[in-house]
Amino acid sequence: MSDATIRRFVPPRGGGNPATDERSAYRWEAVDLLAYKSDASSPFRDVTRQTLFRRDDLAGELRYFEVAPGGHSTLERHAHVHAVLILRGRGRCLVGDAVHAVHERDLVTVPPGTGHQFRAAPDAPLGFLCMVDAVRDKPELPGPDALSSLRAARAVADFLDGR
Amino acid sequence: MSDATIRRFVPPRGGGNPATDERSAYRWEAVDLLAYKSDASSPFRDVTRQTLFRRDDLAGELRYFEVAPGGHSTLERHAHVHAVLILRGRGRCLVGDAVHAVHERDLVTVPPGTGHQFRAAPDAPLGFLCMVDAVRDKPELPGPDALSSLRAARAVADFLDGR
Repeated sequence: MSDATIRRFVPPRGGGNPATDERSAYRWEAVDLLAYKSDASSPFRDVTRQTLFRRDDLAGELRYFEVAPGGHSTLERHAHVHAVLILRGRGRCLVGDAVHAVHERDLVTVPPGTGHQFRAAPDAPLGFLCMVDAVRDKPELPGPDALSSLRAARAVADFLDGR
Repeated sequence: MSDATIRRFVPPRGGGNPATDERSAYRWEAVDLLAYKSDASSPFRDVTRQTLFRRDDLAGELRYFEVAPGGHSTLERHAHVHAVLILRGRGRCLVGDAVHAVHERDLVTVPPGTGHQFRAAPDAPLGFLCMVDAVRDKPELPGPDALSSLRAARAVADFLDGR
């Protein structure tokens, strides 16, 4: 991570197809654009990750995730809290067993141990800041039982199927 | 602080004078709009403060500060780090002995023990997110010697005088 005092925001370039063109993602100087997860066993689609602030002398970490139109993050849970601010675009999120529409600058709290997933709208990206503790546990995926219990609610099944 | 999973962003209302009208500030549901400091001995002008995320189970805290056009935060320093993302508008900041122009979504790192101040442009607000450790030391103001040593640089003196 860069030690620069100021790291400039690089606005999305025009002309690209936001669904497929990486250049449409929000970028910052001296911040690497990373694959969302390196673990291929976690199901996700079209998500990038940038760590905006991570330092040995900060107890929190601030990351930026961008889900391309039609994409989604992994459905997972963990003991650490997610403190989210939507920075760009719109979509929906599942937190526990409730589906919420989200728009720019909405705040989302994912409490400890709560399953969650973010989905971009079909025609817009969903970019969000996520503050977490620097020291935190690893996410776990829901097992088949947890999944079918979630799917019992029609609204949740529709969300998980991207409808 | 609200326990709601989602807290909606309330866009600024049109028609107000952003320099004087509190309604022009960015607001979120169930987030109090507070005076920047309650300590009248810290010099500042036209700044509001909102705590977006503060929880017992989060090591970091995320706040939103908005400086009205022509206003400024307190010039101060402390051992804890500030991790800043400009969310709205534009202005300048002093970090150590360097003045930087800042615009929407730029990242600013204020290292430990480094004097800093944020100033909105004369004709635009400066709204920024600031991540800090939940457990942190109190700010201190520069003494007369530190101030005159800062002022020795013309660019810094101009900044401090709002020029």
